[in-house]
Amino acid sequence: MDRINLVRALVREHGADGVLLTFLPDVRWACGFTGSNGILLVTQSSAHFFSDGRYLLQAAREVSGAEIHITSDNLFEHLASSRLLSNEHILFQSDHILHSTFVQLTSLIPGVIWHPSPDLLTRKVAVKDKDEIGRITEALRITESVFEKILGFIQPGVTEKEIAAEIVYEHLKLGAEKMSFDPVVASGLNGALPHARPSDKKIVPGDLIVLDIGCFLDGYASDMTRTVCVGQPSPEARAVYEVVLKAQNEAIRQARAGMRAKDLDFAARSVIQEAGYGDHFNHSLGHGVGLQIHEWPRISKDAEFEIPAGAVVTIEPGVYIPDSFGVRIKDMVVITEDGCENLSRAVKNLICL
Amino acid sequence: MDRINLVRALVREHGADGVLLTFLPDVRWACGFTGSNGILLVTQSSAHFFSDGRYLLQAAREVSGAEIHITSDNLFEHLASSRLLSNEHILFQSDHILHSTFVQLTSLIPGVIWHPSPDLLTRKVAVKDKDEIGRITEALRITESVFEKILGFIQPGVTEKEIAAEIVYEHLKLGAEKMSFDPVVASGLNGALPHARPSDKKIVPGDLIVLDIGCFLDGYASDMTRTVCVGQPSPEARAVYEVVLKAQNEAIRQARAGMRAKDLDFAARSVIQEAGYGDHFNHSLGHGVGLQIHEWPRISKDAEFEIPAGAVVTIEPGVYIPDSFGVRIKDMVVITEDGCENLSRAVKNLICL
Repeated sequence: MDRINLVRALVREHGADGVLLTFLPDVRWACGFTGSNGILLVTQSSAHFFSDGRYLLQAAREVSGAEIHITSDNLFEHLASSRLLSNEHILFQSDHILHSTFVQLTSLIPGVIWHPSPDLLTRKVAVKDKDEIGRITEALRITESVFEKILGFIQPGVTEKEIAAEIVYEHLKLGAEKMSFDPVVASGLNGALPHARPSDKKIVPGDLIVLDIGCFLDGYASDMTRTVCVGQPSPEARAVYEVVLKAQNEAIRQARAGMRAKDLDFAARSVIQEAGYGDHFNHSLGHGVGLQIHEWPRISKDAEFEIPAGAVVTIEPGVYIPDSFGVRIKDMVVITEDGCENLSRAVKNLICL
Repeated sequence: MDRINLVRALVREHGADGVLLTFLPDVRWACGFTGSNGILLVTQSSAHFFSDGRYLLQAAREVSGAEIHITSDNLFEHLASSRLLSNEHILFQSDHILHSTFVQLTSLIPGVIWHPSPDLLTRKVAVKDKDEIGRITEALRITESVFEKILGFIQPGVTEKEIAAEIVYEHLKLGAEKMSFDPVVASGLNGALPHARPSDKKIVPGDLIVLDIGCFLDGYASDMTRTVCVGQPSPEARAVYEVVLKAQNEAIRQARAGMRAKDLDFAARSVIQEAGYGDHFNHSLGHGVGLQIHEWPRISKDAEFEIPAGAVVTIEPGVYIPDSFGVRIKDMVVITEDGCENLSRAVKNLICL
């Protein structure tokens, strides 16, 4: 079934006449448009894509399954003036529309009954096809190449910010569209903060460095984390590293379709708890990745749902010792019926530079 | 008057009891918080800032004029449970809150009467103080240094994407927080598209190249455009360049506080029209810059309002010859009572590499 028809089927399941997609990654997923301004109306009998004059040629090339409307007006005004909608029940993406835009919409098209449906596509988008997994893998290969290259740059005296600049530069040189998030380069004490930003701190011998990096290629995101050491790590750092790696390996060993997300989280968390570091793993095990760097499913300790086959998720346990150091190791895996396929290839033994 | 009290005065002018700021640049402007998650409630008698545990220390260091509330909950739930609001009339930023969040807010705090006020702070934020102008200037100096350095990299055979990668790299090496937008590197035919994205097109002799670049430093944005030539330009390209430069100089000559924005736009546009290229200048003359790369005031041909002293705006006329080439030149100026101060220093004669 093509994706527009998949959307239609979801709309029918919800007992509605149509849906207005305003979230660009979902618009792209449904009809193929890769630009920065577009909305998609899907009803039972038709589909209509709206964009502005900048995207005249691009929309014609990319959009499939929907009639294209190009306007110099506001897209919502153009939707209203097209008179495609009158008294239908239409779903809308309440998590991806500004309050003012929604108010404008209700006044422009007064007859429509709007129903918030924030998660309409979430579970469909999570299941990747072969083409999507290929693109994610290509993006990840770039990030892994950058990681290897950057190891030659890391040494005592360089700053976290300088390392981050190299990471961005090498990604762009290898053809990445952009970073999927600002790189994390967190050394020594800074590594104890899971979301530290690169600072002017210089690398010193003995530092563990958490490198959390990723890019977009062809719309799809990569995501990886490795923790490396400059010089020799302390015995505790080495021990923690082994615990985190063991936790990750255990989660990858257990991951399979139909498993509850909380059980996958626990597969890693229990290893860390048994080693006595349970209080220092204070985030979720992972998250979906695709057209967004963070997607459903979130693999967390309170997530009751079952993970579907075809989901691409991160497996990223971490241990953060306050005021001392941190370790995180993150791979990307595709969940399959009988296990998972690890898309990540970068080595995982502790690299000491 | 400190900024929290300025906000209070605006709220009183609107006949309301308070305002809930949900737009981060405005939250930062009002209380100083530079993190990625925070909301600010300002009432006539008090001010309350809400953020999450990641920002415990940072909020204490940065936030002034407001009581700090740190929570592991959703910020809006924490606001509700704090019982600070009951039956007041509260303004909210309808252009900067998701529909679902607003619905959540109204159900969490049922007694409050919410009033959309999208532009409450717009004109106050537009007027920069000396410190802000200093930060913008520092950001611009980085961008100008990068521009000078990049001239040595541009030559036949390198691609637009490679030039863009160098631009990002050099900015980060000079300490920029991040780019204020993805660099535009548009050569030859691509230059005819004002919003072209860097491609794999190689530079060839005779290309004009539009370089539109900027960064964030210390929260504030820089923005500059120069058009350079590789080898010798065609006579038409040289002529168009001179027209665009003359148009820009004329706008800078006329700019002053109290001038209607449409008249400033026309100062440049009329020069281009007289030269016969009026149909090929198909965007506005400029926009405000500050904590956002695009702020009020927009300097466009239908903007009736008067530009205030202290606004930092771009002056960026352009001419785009379809299927041929484009020229744009952009400076940043501070509007003053008796003219304007040009913050940009990069040379503006046509550089031929």
